[in-house]
This record gives sequence, C-alpha cells and structure tokens, in this order.
Amino acid sequence: MIVVKIGGGEGINYDAILSDVAALDEETVIVHGGNSELTSLSRRLGKEPKMLHFASGNVSRYTDQETMELFEMVYCGKINSLLVEKLHKLGKNAFGLSGLDGGLLKGERKKELVVLEEGKRKVVRDDRSGNVVDVDSDLLTLLMEKGYLPVISPPALSEDNMAINVDGDRVAALIAAELGADALIILSNVPGLLKDLKDEGSLVAELSVSGMERVEHHAQGRMKIKLLAAKEALSGGVKRVILADARVQKPVSKALAGGGTHIVW
Amino acid sequence: MIVVKIGGGEGINYDAILSDVAALDEETVIVHGGNSELTSLSRRLGKEPKMLHFASGNVSRYTDQETMELFEMVYCGKINSLLVEKLHKLGKNAFGLSGLDGGLLKGERKKELVVLEEGKRKVVRDDRSGNVVDVDSDLLTLLMEKGYLPVISPPALSEDNMAINVDGDRVAALIAAELGADALIILSNVPGLLKDLKDEGSLVAELSVSGMERVEHHAQGRMKIKLLAAKEALSGGVKRVILADARVQKPVSKALAGGGTHIVW
Repeated sequence: MIVVKIGGGEGINYDAILSDVAALDEETVIVHGGNSELTSLSRRLGKEPKMLHFASGNVSRYTDQETMELFEMVYCGKINSLLVEKLHKLGKNAFGLSGLDGGLLKGERKKELVVLEEGKRKVVRDDRSGNVVDVDSDLLTLLMEKGYLPVISPPALSEDNMAINVDGDRVAALIAAELGADALIILSNVPGLLKDLKDEGSLVAELSVSGMERVEHHAQGRMKIKLLAAKEALSGGVKRVILADARVQKPVSKALAGGGTHIVW
Repeated sequence: MIVVKIGGGEGINYDAILSDVAALDEETVIVHGGNSELTSLSRRLGKEPKMLHFASGNVSRYTDQETMELFEMVYCGKINSLLVEKLHKLGKNAFGLSGLDGGLLKGERKKELVVLEEGKRKVVRDDRSGNVVDVDSDLLTLLMEKGYLPVISPPALSEDNMAINVDGDRVAALIAAELGADALIILSNVPGLLKDLKDEGSLVAELSVSGMERVEHHAQGRMKIKLLAAKEALSGGVKRVILADARVQKPVSKALAGGGTHIVW
C-alpha cells in the first residue's frame, strides 16, 4: 500500500500522475494540495493573499474565514473533483474526501500566533490554521475494503469543529503511518532535496533520519516541512519516504524505481 | 427517514435548517444546491452566466468545462463544506459527498441540445448537463449505518465518466425513492406551490399526483421541476413530498407539521 501526496505548486502534471497510479498494481491513497491555485483564485477575486512571517523564518498563509472559503472551493471543490473525475475515466473508483467528512482529519487550531509585521511582534488570534493530529483510519480502511480509492484533501476539523488549514504533506505522513503504508511518495515541482536549489543535479538521492541533520540546512521553505513530514511518517512505521518530481511522465513508478530523494529510518 | 433538499436560491437560512435537522429525532439525508452562489462567483470572475432557452419554454444553465469547474467550486467546495462544518458544530457526524465520489450519482449527459438563440434553432453539443438516472443506495446505507449524516451535492458522473450538472431536486427525489424515505422535503425561497406568484397567501396546501394536472399551470420555472421531482419521488414509493419555505425558523419541523405544499400519491 502506498500513499501519494500530489503537491499544489505550479507545473504539476496531474494526468501523468493519475495514469501512472491507475496503471500500477498497488493499493493507493491520494492526498493533494492546491496552494498555487488558491493564490490565483484569491487574486482573481481581488483578495491579495497575506502571509504570516514568524521569528523562526517560517512563513504561512493567513487563513481568515474568507480565505477558508476560497481554500475549500479550490481544494475540496475544483482539485478534488478534478482528480476524482480523471481517476474514474482511468477506471478507478475514486472517492473524494475532505478532512471534514465524517471528521476524517482531526486537527488543533493555533489559537495564538506570534508573528512579525514590519519588524514588530504581533499576536494573531483569528487564523484558521493548525496541525493535523489524528486520522480516522477505520473509515479509510472501510472505503478501501469496498474497492474505493480515497482522494483526500485538507481542511481538517478542529477540536471545536472548525475547518482549519493543515499542511498536506503532514496529513499524508499521518495517513501513511496510520495505514502502515510501504511507502509515502511526496510529489512536487522539484526533483527532491537539492543541495543547491539552482542545480537540479545536486539531488540528495538517499538519506536516513539520523543523517538528516547534516543536510537539513539545504532545505528551504516548503522543503523543510517535507523533511519534517518524512520524519513523522518514518517514525510512525512507514518504511520509505520518497520526495520526487511531479512534472515528469510516470512520476510514481520513477520514484519507486529509485528516482528522487529516498529517505529511510 | 427523511430526505431534505436545501435549495440554492437567495435567502436560504442554512443555520435555521441545520439546527432544526440536528434537533429532530429523525434519520436524515441532505441534498443541496448552489445556483445563486454559482451565478455570483461566475460574475465576480468576469464570466457572465449563459442560459440555454428551449422551444418548450424551459431554460437551463449552459455548463461548459469552465462552468463545471466553478460549479464544483461552489457546490462541492464552498456550500458542501459549509454545511458539513456547521452540522459537526451541531453535534452531527456529517459526511459530504458529491455524485462523483465512488460514483454515487450516475447520470446521462444530453449530447445534443436543440436550443433557441435569437429565435433561431441551434444544436449545442458540449454542454455538460444531463439527468440523474441512478444512485448507489448501498453506499448511502453503509455510511448511515456507521452513524454518518450524508450531505450530497451534484454533479453526477456520466456514462463516460464526465462530471455533469444534474438537477438537485430530482437527485433528492431519486435518493428518497431508493432509500424508501418517509418524506422528501424540498426547501426553497418560496412557501410552496402558489396559485399566484405575487400572493404568498395563494399557497396550495395539499395536492395529489392525480390532481396535479389541475394546478400545474400555476408552476413557473423551477417550480415545474419541483413538481416533476415530487411525482418521481412519489411514484418511487416515497409517502409524502413537501415543498416548503427555507427562509423561516425550524423550516423542517414546520413542513412536517403541515406547512408548505404537501403532495401525496
């Protein structure tokens, strides 16, 4: 059983990923993002996305009520439906779910965020984002036993039943761990972990969690979260996490055959 | 067991409907629309909705590929997520589904539409709309046995696995028939069938299918489809169809207690 996370950046080749998944003789769960489409919709509707900057250097999308509505429109509406429809065309009985459906994904909202705005510390209390903490694996197992291929999207449901923005890579890691997946394949618009972002030839092909510290400083932005997600999946019992390129033909097969950055415990 | 269809027109009071559903001691399936929100999003994105006019006098939304994406964003993304989140807040384990999920709703696409454009007949071949023909009631029963409250939205999946726009009232009628519901309650922004559209006091309180012919001429636009859906539900074995007002407090309880237009076989 494999979990395939399809990134939400630009340049993702959905057709290539899904026809590869459909052709593989491997039980699969799909988790997807939608970040670049959300930015694009938000701008088209005249709402410039606002980013929150943390003292750690981390940056995340400010998700107010209106942004959550746009988030749901893009992730649960447009992209989830698109993937489910395409998989049906490929002969797979796909079943789209958001983390809200039956409380599939439970999360904890960050009720107070200390952010930097023009150099000053500021507390943000109305952000609808947080961390995913639990997945209802019984529900996923039930659906898979009935022959469905789950296609899963954030948001998650918070402890007070609010839809919250949670990181898709970490959702995929948690699902892979809870389902005891053989591999978690995180596809995005980069070839894997690069020592030099400008040089796709500087790919780190293999990595162990103990060796991660030595290369972690190469990871920028989203790649930091992918390494964190990889660590979480592996510590949850997943045998292998592969960070691989979503812009190529047969991206899943290539990753399983050794492409991208393979991370083991 | 009741099926509640929540209309997609303006003025629908979602909170009133959902708190009523949550308080009622009645197994429920919800089906919803999203028409006015779709029109509004489409306009905000600079795409003026195009209507198809038929010789019969019927009018329907032209659903090209781009419109279907917007449709999914509004129906499956925004409104479905909103209803599911609100129901969780009310203590109900809601489970959102579109007709694509696991092929829940099967439909037949209208491959050739003869429409009138500026008085001339024209054939439209790329419209993504059609009729719902089948519902996977086993899937719904499975979810309900597990304690989930299904919240269902079009589109349906066509025979060639395309997402198609199907009428929500007729979807609700088919689901009510297949599940053997005691009642189908169709809530919209009118009090029921009115003899005079301008006079809410002209409500037809009771109606039988055999008596429908005598009052059918009062039905305009969407109300014609509601009467057709009512007929389909009743001929499928549903005991009672109620067309009732979605703009009031406790709209479901009021409908069950005699409000709106009650239609029986």
